[in-house]
Amino acid sequence: MSSSIPETQMGVIFESNGGPLEYKEIPVPKPKANELLINVKYSGVCHTDLHAWHGDWPLPVKLPLVGGHEGAGIVVAMGDSVKNWNIGDYAGIKWLNGSCMNCESCELANESNCPQADLSGYTHDGSFQQYATADAVQAAKIPHGTDLAEVAPILCAGVTVYKALKSANLKAGDWVAISGACGGLGSLAIQYATAMGYRVLGIDGGEEKAELFKKLGGEYFIDFTKCKDVIAEILEVTDGGAHGVINVSVSEAAIEASTRYCRANGTVVLVGLPANAYCKSEVFSQVVKSISIVGSYVGNRADTRQALDFFARGLVKSPIHIAPLSDLPEIFDKMAKGQIVGRYVVDTSK
Amino acid sequence: MSSSIPETQMGVIFESNGGPLEYKEIPVPKPKANELLINVKYSGVCHTDLHAWHGDWPLPVKLPLVGGHEGAGIVVAMGDSVKNWNIGDYAGIKWLNGSCMNCESCELANESNCPQADLSGYTHDGSFQQYATADAVQAAKIPHGTDLAEVAPILCAGVTVYKALKSANLKAGDWVAISGACGGLGSLAIQYATAMGYRVLGIDGGEEKAELFKKLGGEYFIDFTKCKDVIAEILEVTDGGAHGVINVSVSEAAIEASTRYCRANGTVVLVGLPANAYCKSEVFSQVVKSISIVGSYVGNRADTRQALDFFARGLVKSPIHIAPLSDLPEIFDKMAKGQIVGRYVVDTSK
Amino acid sequence: MSSSIPETQMGVIFESNGGPLEYKEIPVPKPKANELLINVKYSGVCHTDLHAWHGDWPLPVKLPLVGGHEGAGIVVAMGDSVKNWNIGDYAGIKWLNGSCMNCESCELANESNCPQADLSGYTHDGSFQQYATADAVQAAKIPHGTDLAEVAPILCAGVTVYKALKSANLKAGDWVAISGACGGLGSLAIQYATAMGYRVLGIDGGEEKAELFKKLGGEYFIDFTKCKDVIAEILEVTDGGAHGVINVSVSEAAIEASTRYCRANGTVVLVGLPANAYCKSEVFSQVVKSISIVGSYVGNRADTRQALDFFARGLVKSPIHIAPLSDLPEIFDKMAKGQIVGRYVVDTSK
Amino acid sequence: MSSSIPETQMGVIFESNGGPLEYKEIPVPKPKANELLINVKYSGVCHTDLHAWHGDWPLPVKLPLVGGHEGAGIVVAMGDSVKNWNIGDYAGIKWLNGSCMNCESCELANESNCPQADLSGYTHDGSFQQYATADAVQAAKIPHGTDLAEVAPILCAGVTVYKALKSANLKAGDWVAISGACGGLGSLAIQYATAMGYRVLGIDGGEEKAELFKKLGGEYFIDFTKCKDVIAEILEVTDGGAHGVINVSVSEAAIEASTRYCRANGTVVLVGLPANAYCKSEVFSQVVKSISIVGSYVGNRADTRQALDFFARGLVKSPIHIAPLSDLPEIFDKMAKGQIVGRYVVDTSK
Repeated sequence: MSSSIPETQMGVIFESNGGPLEYKEIPVPKPKANELLINVKYSGVCHTDLHAWHGDWPLPVKLPLVGGHEGAGIVVAMGDSVKNWNIGDYAGIKWLNGSCMNCESCELANESNCPQADLSGYTHDGSFQQYATADAVQAAKIPHGTDLAEVAPILCAGVTVYKALKSANLKAGDWVAISGACGGLGSLAIQYATAMGYRVLGIDGGEEKAELFKKLGGEYFIDFTKCKDVIAEILEVTDGGAHGVINVSVSEAAIEASTRYCRANGTVVLVGLPANAYCKSEVFSQVVKSISIVGSYVGNRADTRQALDFFARGLVKSPIHIAPLSDLPEIFDKMAKGQIVGRYVVDTSK
Repeated sequence: MSSSIPETQMGVIFESNGGPLEYKEIPVPKPKANELLINVKYSGVCHTDLHAWHGDWPLPVKLPLVGGHEGAGIVVAMGDSVKNWNIGDYAGIKWLNGSCMNCESCELANESNCPQADLSGYTHDGSFQQYATADAVQAAKIPHGTDLAEVAPILCAGVTVYKALKSANLKAGDWVAISGACGGLGSLAIQYATAMGYRVLGIDGGEEKAELFKKLGGEYFIDFTKCKDVIAEILEVTDGGAHGVINVSVSEAAIEASTRYCRANGTVVLVGLPANAYCKSEVFSQVVKSISIVGSYVGNRADTRQALDFFARGLVKSPIHIAPLSDLPEIFDKMAKGQIVGRYVVDTSK
Repeated sequence: MSSSIPETQMGVIFESNGGPLEYKEIPVPKPKANELLINVKYSGVCHTDLHAWHGDWPLPVKLPLVGGHEGAGIVVAMGDSVKNWNIGDYAGIKWLNGSCMNCESCELANESNCPQADLSGYTHDGSFQQYATADAVQAAKIPHGTDLAEVAPILCAGVTVYKALKSANLKAGDWVAISGACGGLGSLAIQYATAMGYRVLGIDGGEEKAELFKKLGGEYFIDFTKCKDVIAEILEVTDGGAHGVINVSVSEAAIEASTRYCRANGTVVLVGLPANAYCKSEVFSQVVKSISIVGSYVGNRADTRQALDFFARGLVKSPIHIAPLSDLPEIFDKMAKGQIVGRYVVDTSK
Repeated sequence: MSSSIPETQMGVIFESNGGPLEYKEIPVPKPKANELLINVKYSGVCHTDLHAWHGDWPLPVKLPLVGGHEGAGIVVAMGDSVKNWNIGDYAGIKWLNGSCMNCESCELANESNCPQADLSGYTHDGSFQQYATADAVQAAKIPHGTDLAEVAPILCAGVTVYKALKSANLKAGDWVAISGACGGLGSLAIQYATAMGYRVLGIDGGEEKAELFKKLGGEYFIDFTKCKDVIAEILEVTDGGAHGVINVSVSEAAIEASTRYCRANGTVVLVGLPANAYCKSEVFSQVVKSISIVGSYVGNRADTRQALDFFARGLVKSPIHIAPLSDLPEIFDKMAKGQIVGRYVVDTSK
């Protein structure tokens, strides 16, 4: 390991779920044979980070924990088995830090579904620190010259909506409805969908959202605060229903509605992770319309590469607010109160 | 039209939903330019026929109505536009009597989802009569020499489970669980699944069912009247869950359970048509496991041809009870009371 | 049939292969039960029309014959079995005039491969006349308000390249190479590919072609008259080879080269119909690279609807030269001499 | 590493292409961090091993080289990064010893196409020795209790034909033609195809082959030494052509013929690796029939697991001749002379 790598660094760590988030000096981790050590420059802040801190998901977290799973930085060291990486490469830390690579899910390139999945900022110390380790097979390659702050949210939010769009099994020219179109995930989804040649219908509430939707390239916006019959309007505009629906909104009512405005033989995608929510679908009409309801988790390595490529080619913009890492507790607080618009990215150097 | 075709015939007809089922003399219909006139020899009796009579489904029926949609017989006349049929050919009347052939669903070979679908024994007089008309494009070709009584249930029940198995998106060697394995649909599903190279796990109740399951080629049977934890047992036997599930059972609890014993990236198929039932799936686990829940309706022309081919090659047996058409009211009565085991086929000549 | 339909009309007809092309008065055909009678306004002129006249393809033509298979016009009459059409609708005559609809190919929505395919301007009098018949199931629906001259080439050339692009099995962001990028088919292919989100690399010769390529939205152009090693350049630009190749060029050498610059697991599409040409692929490298070489014929009904939709939404332009139908012999002459740039469309009223 | 692992062992090694094959004492290799050390019990002998020795393929081999890539044995040691393996597990050495796991091909589970593929018995010392190393991610898991001699050929020959059958994109009930049905690869292909529910038509020469074909479950055999028109007979028997063709035979004429008896929209698979051979397909008919010609290389990790599962369930038998490893030079000699029937497996202990 190079002499320029310090023994300690600054990071945000917590000892227990819901306990204090401390911004303090902690040791720099050592990469294993299969790992990179990445000097994280920026990290996105995601709702999942809040769940990790609260510990309110069915999967237990590592404790104490450094959270964060949208880290963009520079490779500064690596283990002996690592292939295809060089010191100085730009690298991304994703939700899936590493997986076993030889279970059935991994073999089928569904490594996100690996039962031994190691998760950044959840079961593996994540990107809310200056130096973090990542499995070299799963770490994302980021082209030199990329803006490391802007690319951060692509590593989770971008890949997730891109994978959801792929799961909708659409072809160019098809209508995709995005339920919750103008939040953090939705606004990326609009852009990916447009770049993929789909016709985008967005559902969200308010004038500001309507404007953002148009600006991002959406074709038809439905303001649910004004529309009397969202289902009827979608069936009419799309001449029979959306070919695919991306449920970024996690409202149970919105999800159920999506099964009703989905076209015959179309696909409803579930992508958010609400706690204790159910997707209800009326069997008779699901059968007669022959629709599919599909769960889409985070993307795999190929999805990540592709999602980053759309960003690198300028087809997807990632509007962010940059804040110092030391502000993370306040950002979490705002996020818990639903006061955040857009995506926060923290600068690990401050 | 040949002189040997009579002007009147015997059939079972009702004037109003739930009204008397009359076995009486009625006119022989005339085929349109695109239609065959089929001398129906045998017709299967299906739960759908009961729904048509009761009128308890969301789609209104034609009245007065001759029911039946699993009719096997012989072509005796045809309209001027008909291609690829000869007088004397064996032909089958399916649930989908005809469709528009130029809407989006029809163009994509999803003609069952055609908004103008014309349904035998529902919106078009069906097979509970000696002579019935069927659109020549949709009518099923049955090889000469086929037993017309035994093939009748294949035309709806067989095609339906075959299509459901295709919708499960499996490959040979995968595990398919059949929930409600030993009823009319299930017992056909076991045989099709086996012929397709799948490993079949069946769920049903009782010793008799267990024996039937093994006899039909199933690999592993779970008797829900004895098993303490069906989900756990399936996860263990299949080493991680069934790759696909065919929900022949229409119990809401059974359907929800199927989302839990389905493998990561697997497919749950809904195929029965219960009135007012919902499929409930927990969003968090559907996303993390990335499973699909798919509605499968009746098959299209290609599915029908293929399902008949498995039957013709002797890979699927159709155990039936033959009764005179005039007994149809009693058969309906038994069916409504749940007293029928296996499939009834009526002989239209009696 | 309406009184406004004349008994005779003007059309171009020939009695024998290679015989005189006569522009003369001929009878207006009568639609069968399943047919539309279309008042053709404009018809594209395609190389296939030349082959039909010469009779140099393995399939025999009807004689005498009215050629043409890219006809755009207005429905003026229809047979009794026709559904979903109204007098006054805009309709398109395609290469596939009609098919049997109940063979295996038709059942699978591969109706272009129907052994009984009835071909406009080949086995069925086509669009080089003022009134032509077309099977109502296969005739293309054209939205009201569409420019009937500009849409004509979409009905064959557009649908063909769109289908070829679908056959390449690509996803948005993939590289597609178009060999022969700037001819009639190629210039439509560039636009469809761009609208589908693909990255387009074109191969053709000359400055003028380079400019046209850029204007139509292509990303990278290779001028084979200047490039020393086309294969090497493509491998480099695309970082490993094109994911898909559309061989609009029918040169055997160009086709063989395309198997060499195609990426591992990519797809080479054959779409032109040269007489007596072979596609040669070196087995060792095709296996090791696991590439597919796919024949793509004209699209089906769904492909046609979709290709027209891209045109209707303004994503594809069709640059044409309009000439009177009576000039057809001269147009054929120029075409045979290779003197045509772009697409000719004939006005049937002159 | 356990003290029971010796420092030296017996193996067959050669110093130069075509040079002497020496059975002698050589060092036992040490596993890297990501590798298993496998005590090879048996190894299949494949034509590829002959190519590696001759050095007549476009890819250079490591020298000196221990060949062999169908090794079945027991894990005796492993590196520090290895997951999911235990000492004592049964493991298989495949053609693909290891790959980079983070190039585009690897990410898409096409790791056989990895540009950095490390090949057993080619670029990595293989299974013609008592102890060999294998990347733990690529090594095949073999169930305890499996016969290690019989399973050996499944690791390459079995996986290869299984992958080829998957590449043919068939469904149960479809016809698959196997050209060269009764050699080493073909006789496994017949069994896999049958287990997958396909109808198998075999082409080969001689009475003995005809009997073997029937014994292995094939449905229709064509003896090319007797049949006057193979293409015509296949078209008739299959009612329009085989849905898929597996070209195990590497004859150019046989491959070209396969494009002619393949059904419309069917798939011709190339799987053998002849040096300098070409697949020639007539463009006009490939387009009009819309067939695909697909190169299929060895399977990936999932294909391997699945192919082994068919073997473990007794659906595929692997008839072998067992010989001492020290006989390898004579076996190569017979193989070069075409004198081998069936598959040789060498016992590394002798």
